[in-house]
Amino acid sequence: MSADMEIYQGQRTLTAKAVRAEIRAGRYDRHTAGLAAGKLQCNLAILPEVHALDFLRFCQRNPKPCPVVGVSDTGDPFMRTLGDDIDIRSDVPRYRVFREGTLVEEVKDIGHLWRDDLVTVALGCSFTFENAFMANDIPVRHIEQDKTVPMYRTSIALEPAGVFKGEMVATMRPIHKERVEDAWRISGAFPHAHGAPIAMGDPGAIGITDLNAPDWGDPVQVSEDEVPVYWACGVTPQNVLMNAHLPLCITHAPGHMLIADVSETFENQPLINSKN
Amino acid sequence: MSADMEIYQGQRTLTAKAVRAEIRAGRYDRHTAGLAAGKLQCNLAILPEVHALDFLRFCQRNPKPCPVVGVSDTGDPFMRTLGDDIDIRSDVPRYRVFREGTLVEEVKDIGHLWRDDLVTVALGCSFTFENAFMANDIPVRHIEQDKTVPMYRTSIALEPAGVFKGEMVATMRPIHKERVEDAWRISGAFPHAHGAPIAMGDPGAIGITDLNAPDWGDPVQVSEDEVPVYWACGVTPQNVLMNAHLPLCITHAPGHMLIADVSETFENQPLINSKN
Repeated sequence: MSADMEIYQGQRTLTAKAVRAEIRAGRYDRHTAGLAAGKLQCNLAILPEVHALDFLRFCQRNPKPCPVVGVSDTGDPFMRTLGDDIDIRSDVPRYRVFREGTLVEEVKDIGHLWRDDLVTVALGCSFTFENAFMANDIPVRHIEQDKTVPMYRTSIALEPAGVFKGEMVATMRPIHKERVEDAWRISGAFPHAHGAPIAMGDPGAIGITDLNAPDWGDPVQVSEDEVPVYWACGVTPQNVLMNAHLPLCITHAPGHMLIADVSETFENQPLINSKN
Repeated sequence: MSADMEIYQGQRTLTAKAVRAEIRAGRYDRHTAGLAAGKLQCNLAILPEVHALDFLRFCQRNPKPCPVVGVSDTGDPFMRTLGDDIDIRSDVPRYRVFREGTLVEEVKDIGHLWRDDLVTVALGCSFTFENAFMANDIPVRHIEQDKTVPMYRTSIALEPAGVFKGEMVATMRPIHKERVEDAWRISGAFPHAHGAPIAMGDPGAIGITDLNAPDWGDPVQVSEDEVPVYWACGVTPQNVLMNAHLPLCITHAPGHMLIADVSETFENQPLINSKN
């Protein structure tokens, strides 16, 4: 991870478009945290059109784990509302390809897999509120420690839609007791990026048995003056997609996000941005 | 309108469910402004599934005029994430039925038109922020004067999706110069109900030629100490649907909204509401 860090430090001054050009050319395939500061980064779900309506219904019903920020036209590999010349076949550092719910490969380009019936759904991610935390002097433990945020399966049932169903996956960040209210308010201002927490305190209350044994990512310590705070996690839709056993489904690899041209505040959505 | 006002004043103390029961029984068919205080009221678009994916894409790309708050399963006449026992075939005071883009009838029940391929999309409406304005002592002129809010075609192009395209329709409310900032902030807190204004001041800047000649609704006066402020309007999707010339499409009649059980703050969305 430290080697990655050194490499991507060199990329931090590039624009979103320039970072995507590096990725498209195959010169950058690491994680995207901290790149193109201020730009929206996105989780991805690419799936056949026949499942897209149900998946959008699922996202609408579960907006905290699945905040939709962009949907492509069917068969169109460009994400036209998220930026200029975003080719979803090549502009993400790493993709995961699932067939019948099984991860079959991790690749840097999906041009060979593209089909006229594929729909791309882009979802907001927690980088957005983590950046806001750091800008507001709320430390983010896993970033300080150069770890991956701890993620847990919870007992919180999702609202189903067609074949899409299951339980929410949550992230945990230890927050100082005196900053919990700020963290709540700040993350709540980004509903397109998981929004306010879903719970705080007792992990058992949401079905987490051991904070030291996350289902994904690395454990981080919660100090005595801190409270564990839980947010809906973008692994939720990935997990739900996997469990739906679609014939084909493609996601980004965790941490290897799509970097859009739009602001991470997402206030200037395409319509208003381009016309006013 | 005054007769209506008297009638519905008697309904103001009823719960959302009780109001819907009156509507379902055919005993209430007037407009719903002010009913079931605090509950979310919704614009409706009911359309064949074959067009639903494109319509949801259209809404995602144009969230200010088209803020989606609920989507039914295909063929399911119940809006399960918006409340208990909401039968969309009977629980709205008045419906408008469009065939090939032409209004063919206005009815109080659509049971005879229901089909297994219909999808209902519920969209937030401006009642939500108007209620918040009144609670914050920001007068709402058209309500004070017992008129319908003035609505205007604008030159603001919408992001298209499939057959859905066109220009935004906007409402105008005169706001006292010293309260414009408050009005902006308060409405901005309700992104599911058109959110912050899209413009203020010169109507010509957004393609409105004469504030005294709205395309729908009634003109209202803008005083010297006031500024005309414009919001995205729920007539936009209705207009876009009409122009798409779908074989069948059903909407609510203007002002005759679906009253949901969920709060108009929409903070407690289904998932979090039911499980935490």
